[in-house]
Amino acid sequence: MFDPLSLKYDAAGLIPAIAQDAASGEVLMMAWMNADAVARTLSTGRVTYWSRSRASFWIKGESSGHVQQLVEMRVDCDRDCLLVLVEQTGPACHTNRRSCFYTGIRDGAEVVLSEPMV
Amino acid sequence: MFDPLSLKYDAAGLIPAIAQDAASGEVLMMAWMNADAVARTLSTGRVTYWSRSRASFWIKGESSGHVQQLVEMRVDCDRDCLLVLVEQTGPACHTNRRSCFYTGIRDGAEVVLSEPMV
Repeated sequence: MFDPLSLKYDAAGLIPAIAQDAASGEVLMMAWMNADAVARTLSTGRVTYWSRSRASFWIKGESSGHVQQLVEMRVDCDRDCLLVLVEQTGPACHTNRRSCFYTGIRDGAEVVLSEPMV
Repeated sequence: MFDPLSLKYDAAGLIPAIAQDAASGEVLMMAWMNADAVARTLSTGRVTYWSRSRASFWIKGESSGHVQQLVEMRVDCDRDCLLVLVEQTGPACHTNRRSCFYTGIRDGAEVVLSEPMV
């Protein structure tokens, strides 16, 4: 059986989790989980992070409705990073964009690559 | 102009960088950069991380030949995470697998999803 405590957490007890759209492959966001958030994500199927700013569980989309349904959790070779494949409802980003990675560096300048969803 | 010092680094001066295959969309690995590694990656086009274990720059593939050619660097909304779209030569993972995220959690057990490249 997979044990969330078998992962490697940082000094704050957190592990980075990359959320990727399971259908399109788009990388949506990166946030942090603690061992309990990993366990809750697996048991509920709702991707749940640990909010460092609020120091509380963050069930993605709980207030906005922009939930992430877990398709599969993957662990990297060093066991210190997670990839969560998700079905994302609406935008993943708090700016209302599909992905948080909407700024590209092109020819040394920042370029906004996508607009907020309507 | 984009200034690497405008990003948000952690207490160790590092920012997580997710490497994604620009062609296939596969998430290959996650590693860390400091501001100099960000600048070197942009100026050389060779993705360069900061190795926490060796405390030195890590030009990906410098010894193995498994280089990452930068296609585009992206910054997230909080400016505390990077996505680097790359052309990956050979495997990204030190286990000789294309991606470091080769272990899936399925029905509560760990399943190896890909084998080392030959």
